[in-house]
Amino acid sequence: MIILKIGGSILTKKDLAKPEVDYENLERIASEIEESLHSDDLNSDLSDGLIIVHGAGSFGHPPASKYKIGESFPIEDYPFKRLGFAEIQNQVKKLNSIICDSLIKHNIPVVSMPPSSFVTTVDKRIYEFRLGLIKKYIKEGYVPVLYGDIVLDEELKMAIISGDQILQYIAKILKSDNIILGTDVNGVYTKNPKNHKDSKLISVLTNLNQIEELESTTNIDVTGGMVGKVKELLELANLGIDSEIINANTPKTIANALQSKPVIGTKLTSKLEEYNY
Amino acid sequence: MIILKIGGSILTKKDLAKPEVDYENLERIASEIEESLHSDDLNSDLSDGLIIVHGAGSFGHPPASKYKIGESFPIEDYPFKRLGFAEIQNQVKKLNSIICDSLIKHNIPVVSMPPSSFVTTVDKRIYEFRLGLIKKYIKEGYVPVLYGDIVLDEELKMAIISGDQILQYIAKILKSDNIILGTDVNGVYTKNPKNHKDSKLISVLTNLNQIEELESTTNIDVTGGMVGKVKELLELANLGIDSEIINANTPKTIANALQSKPVIGTKLTSKLEEYNY
Repeated sequence: MIILKIGGSILTKKDLAKPEVDYENLERIASEIEESLHSDDLNSDLSDGLIIVHGAGSFGHPPASKYKIGESFPIEDYPFKRLGFAEIQNQVKKLNSIICDSLIKHNIPVVSMPPSSFVTTVDKRIYEFRLGLIKKYIKEGYVPVLYGDIVLDEELKMAIISGDQILQYIAKILKSDNIILGTDVNGVYTKNPKNHKDSKLISVLTNLNQIEELESTTNIDVTGGMVGKVKELLELANLGIDSEIINANTPKTIANALQSKPVIGTKLTSKLEEYNY
Repeated sequence: MIILKIGGSILTKKDLAKPEVDYENLERIASEIEESLHSDDLNSDLSDGLIIVHGAGSFGHPPASKYKIGESFPIEDYPFKRLGFAEIQNQVKKLNSIICDSLIKHNIPVVSMPPSSFVTTVDKRIYEFRLGLIKKYIKEGYVPVLYGDIVLDEELKMAIISGDQILQYIAKILKSDNIILGTDVNGVYTKNPKNHKDSKLISVLTNLNQIEELESTTNIDVTGGMVGKVKELLELANLGIDSEIINANTPKTIANALQSKPVIGTKLTSKLEEYNY
């Protein structure tokens, strides 16, 4: 089974007054997923099932900041905060609905699973997460689509659950074979490539020491820096779940990664012997 | 706690090539719910919580017929059927999203709960239905919004779950104080009012014998006839859960019903002593 995460920054346009979908990227990525699912030499990881997780991008982050979700608040603010919850939930659902439209047009039998209807958190970390139905949908041949959402938090009343946190959780519990992270960078570099001409893309990453400047390395999106992501993915690698950070803006990269073909990117693994490294 | 069901025929326009929302009705009903929730003499039933259940109307019924959901099918049709599932789920989600938009504009802290992410059926009847999170949302002051959806069925692979079935289930399990059914008729008549000039609206219904012509009485919507509804509501009445069938097309009817004010309609109850009947 493969879990494909598509960053919100890939599917939505940043820095616009109104949240907007990047339809060009969405359409291309949907067709790359379709191509992979219908490929004749379907690799066994993909034939065991696919889960798609997408970020909230410009549909989620601006209202989440506006309503200061994740910060504690006095009880008299609760009515206002609840409306924020409602607004954010409905906004990210709209993005999800547009994404599903495109995937359905490309003959992908998606089933949308909004975390707000089966996940709760404690201090922003997953507390309850009912996976039974996701497993059933996969078994029946569907492609579950999960996404960054707002959920009930037992301490803070409400919290944002990022696509990355969902990804990490379901990968571990469902023991996924592989994780593909479609981001807007080519992968993990030895130093921040924006400031350092001598930075190099790390093709196989097995531990954090390979990154020379931890603090300043490229961020993937606003819900967490690259270092946090890499740490979490290395933890999964130690459990035998490999992952690959790739650039989803580059055509064919998602298609190739889904079909286990070589791509530019960073592979995170603990299985050193499989690589000439 | 009150459960308000709003029929799909109230919120969507029938007989159009494309599914369309009845924005006028939606806007009016959202404002009536807002008024009721913010009323000074908030009756105790409503202050204990509100759940809204809406039908799928023209967003759900045409694709459900097209894909023949609920009929058994040969396994080679499964890929096509799965796409039908995906399409229907996404269509009814769009309707739900538009309804939530309107409710949020009217300051109602809604949380959308799509049945496809926590309900399964066996031969079209509810099998699994996780209510825990709905209870939590109510406790935290939200208004959960559920709706007619498509779900996994353990026998037929997939089935439509109607708003009415959801309503009946949650009313029983959550022991709701009252159910309000917003339909496009005034209530239950002694005979079909379309064919019989001498038919009378039944104001308090305690058993089926009050209906003179069971077979031909007015249908409320396409997912089930009035008789089926009435039978199910009388079963609930016997458990102490009263309900009221009202005309949601008539302005102020939902507002008055939510505030326990007298309205034209049919009350279904087993508590005869409370009525001059």
